Amino acid sequence: MMIEDNFRKVVPYVPGEQPKDNDVIKLNTNENPYPPSPSVLDALAKVDNNSFRKYPDPDVTDLVQAIADYHHFKKENVFVGVGSDDVLAMCFLSFFNSGKEILFPDVSYAFYKVWADLFQIKYREVPLDENFNIVPKDYMVDNGGIVFPNPNAPTGLTLPLSDIEDIIIENKHKVVIVDEAYIDFGGETALSLINKYDNLIVTRTFSKSRSMAGMRIGYCIGNEQLISVLNSVKFSFNSYTMSDVAIKCGVASINDDTYFKNIVAKIIDTREKTKESLTKLGFTFLDSSSNFIFAKHNEISGEELFNALKENKIFVRHFNAPRINDYLRITIGTEREMEELISFLDSYISGKRG
Amino acid sequence: MMIEDNFRKVVPYVPGEQPKDNDVIKLNTNENPYPPSPSVLDALAKVDNNSFRKYPDPDVTDLVQAIADYHHFKKENVFVGVGSDDVLAMCFLSFFNSGKEILFPDVSYAFYKVWADLFQIKYREVPLDENFNIVPKDYMVDNGGIVFPNPNAPTGLTLPLSDIEDIIIENKHKVVIVDEAYIDFGGETALSLINKYDNLIVTRTFSKSRSMAGMRIGYCIGNEQLISVLNSVKFSFNSYTMSDVAIKCGVASINDDTYFKNIVAKIIDTREKTKESLTKLGFTFLDSSSNFIFAKHNEISGEELFNALKENKIFVRHFNAPRINDYLRITIGTEREMEELISFLDSYISGKRG
Repeated sequence: MMIEDNFRKVVPYVPGEQPKDNDVIKLNTNENPYPPSPSVLDALAKVDNNSFRKYPDPDVTDLVQAIADYHHFKKENVFVGVGSDDVLAMCFLSFFNSGKEILFPDVSYAFYKVWADLFQIKYREVPLDENFNIVPKDYMVDNGGIVFPNPNAPTGLTLPLSDIEDIIIENKHKVVIVDEAYIDFGGETALSLINKYDNLIVTRTFSKSRSMAGMRIGYCIGNEQLISVLNSVKFSFNSYTMSDVAIKCGVASINDDTYFKNIVAKIIDTREKTKESLTKLGFTFLDSSSNFIFAKHNEISGEELFNALKENKIFVRHFNAPRINDYLRITIGTEREMEELISFLDSYISGKRG
Repeated sequence: MMIEDNFRKVVPYVPGEQPKDNDVIKLNTNENPYPPSPSVLDALAKVDNNSFRKYPDPDVTDLVQAIADYHHFKKENVFVGVGSDDVLAMCFLSFFNSGKEILFPDVSYAFYKVWADLFQIKYREVPLDENFNIVPKDYMVDNGGIVFPNPNAPTGLTLPLSDIEDIIIENKHKVVIVDEAYIDFGGETALSLINKYDNLIVTRTFSKSRSMAGMRIGYCIGNEQLISVLNSVKFSFNSYTMSDVAIKCGVASINDDTYFKNIVAKIIDTREKTKESLTKLGFTFLDSSSNFIFAKHNEISGEELFNALKENKIFVRHFNAPRINDYLRITIGTEREMEELISFLDSYISGKRG
């Protein structure tokens, strides 16, 4: 035996670049351009030595209760983790153990494949149709579980709630995970189906709409039985995943709903203005309901634009993958950041034509 | 198929109680009775909105480098996680994949068994000898990897470095994990063997000696190849496990070594005084090198003492497990807390005799 025979072989997910240089326009990781509610920094300022010295509440009671109240569920319906990636990883480990292949879209969040590989779960990537839409009937076949984002990433497209309900009904003996990382920016949430079906998990994150990517908070909502299974697995992995500081800041965010709704509305407004500007510049794009636009130019390749933007210190995301390698995923920044983006693209494209 | 057929079946670890009541003497989870270095709170006070809005550095560069410098290693030798439980879980998932059974002591950290079950790793619990010592030759048999704490928990006993080295040499094609959660309080670290052997991982935590249980920081040190495997698995699980606040506070702790050494010395001093007092009260105990004492009384059962203490708002840990159910694991608190403990035990025991 060689030492390598003991190692787990994986191909890790590659996150978007986090440049150390603060002098860039960062539209590459779907972060929120606005700070979190001032009450989050207030909560941080109140943290004292006991938040360090002692272990945090392993049940994360205060944050779980705040999230439950916010969405009108019981605390037994809520599970919290270190970002929705942690929540999704726990879901894969907890719910996809039938030995059958799980299903997710071929153009989607690239981490699904990575988790399946990590936990040695069989999977099949289901092709989106020619307009990049999810086809519900493709998910009504024998499988070991289903996961998809709504809105989907990186397309930004939504699936109507009636289609989601059909998928849930047709898969009642498997777990269906609807990844709602971007739902605050558009689309209809599946939370209204939680009390109706016991095989649905809806995941959410504080990283996008709540401006708290740096603090690592995600959660999911589901039937009590599913949440109880998740908690058993989580307590078999790490008793204390959420720091006391994260718990306190998370509660503060939930409690300032006015601020939250206000910045989300601003981002949606900027997104719609950006769509108009991109159209004028010769871009086509999917009609995004999220905090990013997935766009391609009618003359210039995605890779060329990605590199030209990066040289000019504007970071967007480019996926070198089939079907989507001519697209750029552009996060919605502030009004001013988007004006700078449009202005650069305008002169770059004119220069090419000139 | 029923929905339950999809679920992972586990028996989770049960962490020590975290009472909401602040009016208790909490000697049950091996927390540090002293706050972290004042520079940690200073670092927290400097956190601004960018620590929230943006994703943290996925490579945790600043903290990894600070830890590497502190122990005189390269950053390629260091891996950081959400407490040493997260680090150990990642190690189990990364390194114990040979299909052979892994080995750990029968009286030890109860989470080892839980991780093995979670990841469906075969294991064998190797009995400690009659004095609760690890017997090195028992680990020189066919196996798929080894893990043990040094000092061991809940015994507090240490294994000489030469014995640890023998175990590493005899298992050169498997990974040997030495869990040094308590090493700052006594025993000889195995870090000096890292550059000599490529199958050794040493894990550490900020939760005990560094007074930062609430912030969730742990790490391990090993050969570059092992750390690279760990990073691949970690990036297949969650790109961003460490919050920006945790990174900044962790660096601040590492950088104040004088404060750190001072509180550790105080705890060791209190531990030795507590040993004397316990002896006078009729307790026998293992000669702990950690921040707890594992003690039993010569007349009164562990369960009775545990309950009597709890009724008096003094929390210690009692394990209802073979060989150790007459023992209490008593964390070393402040001088004053230990005086209150001894004073209560004195009157309780006198009352029984009276």
